[in-house]
Amino acid sequence: MTAPFSTLNEFRAVLARQPGIDTAAEAGAQERNGQLTKPPGALGRLEDLAIWYAGWRGNPRPSIEAPQVIVFAGNHGVCARGVSAFPAEVTVQMVANFKAGGAAINQLSKAFGAKMDVYALDLDTPTQDFTADAAMTEAECVAALATGWSSVDPKADLLVTGEMGIGNTTSAAAMAAALFGGAGADWAGRGTGVDDAGLARKAKVIDEGLALHNAALSDPLEVLRRLGGRELAAMAGAIAAARAHRIPVILDGFICSAAAAALAKAQAGALDHAVAGHQSAEGAHARLLDALGKAPLLQLGLRLGEGSGAALAIGVLKGAVACLSGMATFAEAGVSEG
Amino acid sequence: MTAPFSTLNEFRAVLARQPGIDTAAEAGAQERNGQLTKPPGALGRLEDLAIWYAGWRGNPRPSIEAPQVIVFAGNHGVCARGVSAFPAEVTVQMVANFKAGGAAINQLSKAFGAKMDVYALDLDTPTQDFTADAAMTEAECVAALATGWSSVDPKADLLVTGEMGIGNTTSAAAMAAALFGGAGADWAGRGTGVDDAGLARKAKVIDEGLALHNAALSDPLEVLRRLGGRELAAMAGAIAAARAHRIPVILDGFICSAAAAALAKAQAGALDHAVAGHQSAEGAHARLLDALGKAPLLQLGLRLGEGSGAALAIGVLKGAVACLSGMATFAEAGVSEG
Repeated sequence: MTAPFSTLNEFRAVLARQPGIDTAAEAGAQERNGQLTKPPGALGRLEDLAIWYAGWRGNPRPSIEAPQVIVFAGNHGVCARGVSAFPAEVTVQMVANFKAGGAAINQLSKAFGAKMDVYALDLDTPTQDFTADAAMTEAECVAALATGWSSVDPKADLLVTGEMGIGNTTSAAAMAAALFGGAGADWAGRGTGVDDAGLARKAKVIDEGLALHNAALSDPLEVLRRLGGRELAAMAGAIAAARAHRIPVILDGFICSAAAAALAKAQAGALDHAVAGHQSAEGAHARLLDALGKAPLLQLGLRLGEGSGAALAIGVLKGAVACLSGMATFAEAGVSEG
Repeated sequence: MTAPFSTLNEFRAVLARQPGIDTAAEAGAQERNGQLTKPPGALGRLEDLAIWYAGWRGNPRPSIEAPQVIVFAGNHGVCARGVSAFPAEVTVQMVANFKAGGAAINQLSKAFGAKMDVYALDLDTPTQDFTADAAMTEAECVAALATGWSSVDPKADLLVTGEMGIGNTTSAAAMAAALFGGAGADWAGRGTGVDDAGLARKAKVIDEGLALHNAALSDPLEVLRRLGGRELAAMAGAIAAARAHRIPVILDGFICSAAAAALAKAQAGALDHAVAGHQSAEGAHARLLDALGKAPLLQLGLRLGEGSGAALAIGVLKGAVACLSGMATFAEAGVSEG
């Protein structure tokens, strides 16, 4: 579906007129949940999750049949500063691996019945090093947002956005610092596995970026354009498109959450249709989720990206929705209420 | 498969001669894991889980095709003491609901591709009130262990044991106190939802049981017989049978963990083939898992029993094994290592 914006300001306007939850469907699901054959509240977070999902789908008894996982890949000029343990050519190599079915996200998408799409975003043209210039021009940033927007299948009933991009934990950490305050050292993590010297380099590079772009960072979309990257912008575009289609979203790890945070800061409530799939082992993800007010569904020490943690959480959401929609009520089953 | 024991001492002897993990398969999986297209350790606990599963299955590149969920139901004489928010007839009503496909565990089993079996254990003959006598005679306890043992499908490749039994959080808490020390108040929880007065009653009833049976409680199998119940003994029998068949087990909540704890205390390492599926919201489950040295895979506030939390964790284990066995290696994919 063609993106309904061609500038950052038009994208901002789209965010301001997104649909909300269907409160009638939400209330219907809540009522049904209270009649199911279990003690009240005994399914814990599964109950809240299923009711939330029902509300966003506009159906008090929904099902999950068509999850979509989209992996966006981008390259980062800031890699020249030695911020990653892996060389930049790994991004394109991993895209080939995604297309051949060999990556973790391929296995997880298959395991949870999701179709998986891969978008390589101008890998031959890395973003600018954000310590020297804005990572993207407005046209580049809008193009990436639009690719993300258009990549969402309107017929999907659940969306996971993942990413691959050597260097992108540095971009994500810079965005988090710009959006929520703090310095590079507060948000930099080990990514694919940098040593102590690499970690210190990341923090310094982030501080340089924050200093260079300081005057513009009160605008969350400028944060995305100046410090982010194409795959981060594409994730933001996809998450926004999902809202337009009333498709609930499971957020992945640190990078996905940083991209999503730009939306949340640009428009209050912009992530109400999203849950946090997991808490990554990447340094500051817990802090970032806390800033977003999102409690993770899983905490299994993943730090891979690709959408892997969120894909794993598809299972939790499927289980939650299966209970809401498939269980018998006390009356149907002839079970005595307490 | 017929149970290879007809007394508690014979069951004890069976526990002492169970097979261990296949260290060659475990090492093979570990080696393969190190070659997969991801930074080392980036799949966190999924890596350990998959290697553990491979070791128990004796296959360095395994798959999960045939999970089995077994729900055991029993009635408890201690219900006469007012320890539950629900009447005892709910046990038989819920068995009918399991058989009709209407309970939470039916939906979760289906969602994760597990076959589900239900065993109602002499529901017309509740165990004795453990504050007056041993809950079960040796013959009754052995019969329940044997039912559990025989219920495991030798062709299953993953086992979840669940339970239903109004009053059984009281039995489980009494067992936990007997096995790990502490008083009723340390281990009693709200179960299906008792109020403060009910919770105090549970603690008092447990203390009475501990006092009555005190002299015999150094024997973990006597703890099971005197304070447990048929569904707890059946779960213990099934978990032991799974070990004999080299079928990994996902433990469910407080009651399943208490049954499993009797095995762990009777024979060191008896739960090495088991992981904790989740941490229940039932009061002392975190403490019980800690005593067992098991870190839960999920923490979603479930407190339903039936095997529900463990069934949800089947998805996590399937995802873990899919990554180990399905991912490409760096060499296969032509991806540069860091």
